[in-house]
Amino acid sequence: MNEAFLRACHGEAVRPVPVWLMRQAGRYLPAYQELRKKIDFLTLCKTPELAAKVTIQPVDILGVDAAILFSDILIPLECMGIGLDFHEGRGPVLNPPVRTEQDIERLYPIDPDTDVSFVLETIRILRKELSGKVPLIGFSGAPFTLATYMIEGGTSKTFVNTKRMLFESPHLFSRLMDLLSEVVLSYIEAQIKAGVQAIQVFDTWAGILTREDYERYALPYVTRIIKRVKGSGVPFIYFVFNGGHVLEIIRDSGAEVIGLDWRTDIKTAISILGSDTVVQGNLDPCALFLPENELKTRVDSLLRQGLEAKAHIFNLGHGILPEIPHEKARLLVELVHGLSS
Amino acid sequence: MNEAFLRACHGEAVRPVPVWLMRQAGRYLPAYQELRKKIDFLTLCKTPELAAKVTIQPVDILGVDAAILFSDILIPLECMGIGLDFHEGRGPVLNPPVRTEQDIERLYPIDPDTDVSFVLETIRILRKELSGKVPLIGFSGAPFTLATYMIEGGTSKTFVNTKRMLFESPHLFSRLMDLLSEVVLSYIEAQIKAGVQAIQVFDTWAGILTREDYERYALPYVTRIIKRVKGSGVPFIYFVFNGGHVLEIIRDSGAEVIGLDWRTDIKTAISILGSDTVVQGNLDPCALFLPENELKTRVDSLLRQGLEAKAHIFNLGHGILPEIPHEKARLLVELVHGLSS
Repeated sequence: MNEAFLRACHGEAVRPVPVWLMRQAGRYLPAYQELRKKIDFLTLCKTPELAAKVTIQPVDILGVDAAILFSDILIPLECMGIGLDFHEGRGPVLNPPVRTEQDIERLYPIDPDTDVSFVLETIRILRKELSGKVPLIGFSGAPFTLATYMIEGGTSKTFVNTKRMLFESPHLFSRLMDLLSEVVLSYIEAQIKAGVQAIQVFDTWAGILTREDYERYALPYVTRIIKRVKGSGVPFIYFVFNGGHVLEIIRDSGAEVIGLDWRTDIKTAISILGSDTVVQGNLDPCALFLPENELKTRVDSLLRQGLEAKAHIFNLGHGILPEIPHEKARLLVELVHGLSS
Repeated sequence: MNEAFLRACHGEAVRPVPVWLMRQAGRYLPAYQELRKKIDFLTLCKTPELAAKVTIQPVDILGVDAAILFSDILIPLECMGIGLDFHEGRGPVLNPPVRTEQDIERLYPIDPDTDVSFVLETIRILRKELSGKVPLIGFSGAPFTLATYMIEGGTSKTFVNTKRMLFESPHLFSRLMDLLSEVVLSYIEAQIKAGVQAIQVFDTWAGILTREDYERYALPYVTRIIKRVKGSGVPFIYFVFNGGHVLEIIRDSGAEVIGLDWRTDIKTAISILGSDTVVQGNLDPCALFLPENELKTRVDSLLRQGLEAKAHIFNLGHGILPEIPHEKARLLVELVHGLSS
């Protein structure tokens, strides 16, 4: 098997630098689009054979060094007693939103073996089909990010309901966060048991908090989860979107790998996180619109910056966009491998 | 007249610290809501007597140290030959979006005296009515931010069309930016001639760029404008939302005052910008949900951090939200004045 990605996770400065792309299984791939004509997003997530097929597509088409489970961070929330729906172009809708003590009392923890058995089955299929190819990454949303979706009832521009609960009813908020942490932990543990070889936790919205609030209301729940996962030997990647201002604190999270969005340049990140850190990232997803020579210059610059870290896993700084031609994504993977070998 | 705000703009460490709130004329004020029942947003912007009335409301109700013209950053775009519409809850829609050479060719610069005479008339009314009270701040969107609205046709989550033009057709993009810079400059100059005593330029979306791209594609246009405004003696406040990662570059913009969003703490910002900087900000707008004693602690902490700067103008780190009770906003102003006197 191609072990480059896992060795980098464990701190080895692997050459060529391993690369995978957030949302690499998705709408920019014609083969995926073809499948989605016949099947809606949630059904696809819940059909193990198809979810596995979609997970493998970018491994074959792009030549990436890792596969990431095709699923969605909101999947486990549905099992907690909240309605989940995806509307094309409008984003997810969670109904009813969770805003009061009564709302929280109606929620319950999940039993992964029964509630998300389709995810675990997808993982088992994938481990067989990927054997001899690349490692499989499992993932989850971080408790704070999942809380924002529950409280807002979807995404938000201002996150006013989330912060309102945080600031007006901190005890209520921490009750929700405790429950979500329990859910995330059992979800991750079940994925590991089913066979994933790394875990990425997405904290997509924690960057809306000030450093102080992040330190108090978001990070401790992640650190707690990381501590519990440590014993498994499965590396933990922690990605805070738009989190440049909290890097100083993330440093002590205990995660093996820190994911960076495209705004924080790797050099600055390393100066904050320390050269003993494994970083993942962080090309601007839109840089894939650049002509080849300019794309090459940017990739090369990121690879050079990555040399300052203990190890570097190349990735985009956010999910790949549906507007990107997949040939460009393939070219990116080739460039990363070629320029770092 | 209360000169505290202007003195702080010019670098004097004024006590008590002057305070105003972004979007202080707006939906959280019952008097404003009352007016909006009878009149839509754009008509309100274009009716000088009413726009002036709304501008003055927070001065009387909250006791802030400056008034900011009631208007919208998108107002001048309408005069460039693009349709502008505000849909409640959906944000602005600009139609048709500007994406090709032909689209740009259809646009024209503005003649403020005829195209936005209503803005200039509002300013003249306000200078009379505010005389003996507080200074009047005029404002504009920054060229990059205005370009995103034009190219996306409104707001966006990914700004994929903007970056696509930037990366695929940089010459086209700079042509649009040149035109917008000309518009912004003439708009600001006309506001100054009509009587505004400070200018804030909002770069709401420049924070989506990497530091390199910001330095190359966004800041030079702002710096050019600042240079031209310098001679007027009217202080220039430059606010990049979500711009923590570009502060190092903003330092050299030439702006008299740097606005900070709530994510970048003042202390860190000063360590980057230098203690010779005048900063404006930066309470999390949602902190107004906190109980009084906790709000007081945060305000006090910000004021202490502000002492490290050459001067500090207190503000929120983003616009005040409609969900905030106006009594809380009034309390905030009292706290700032009380804790810093």
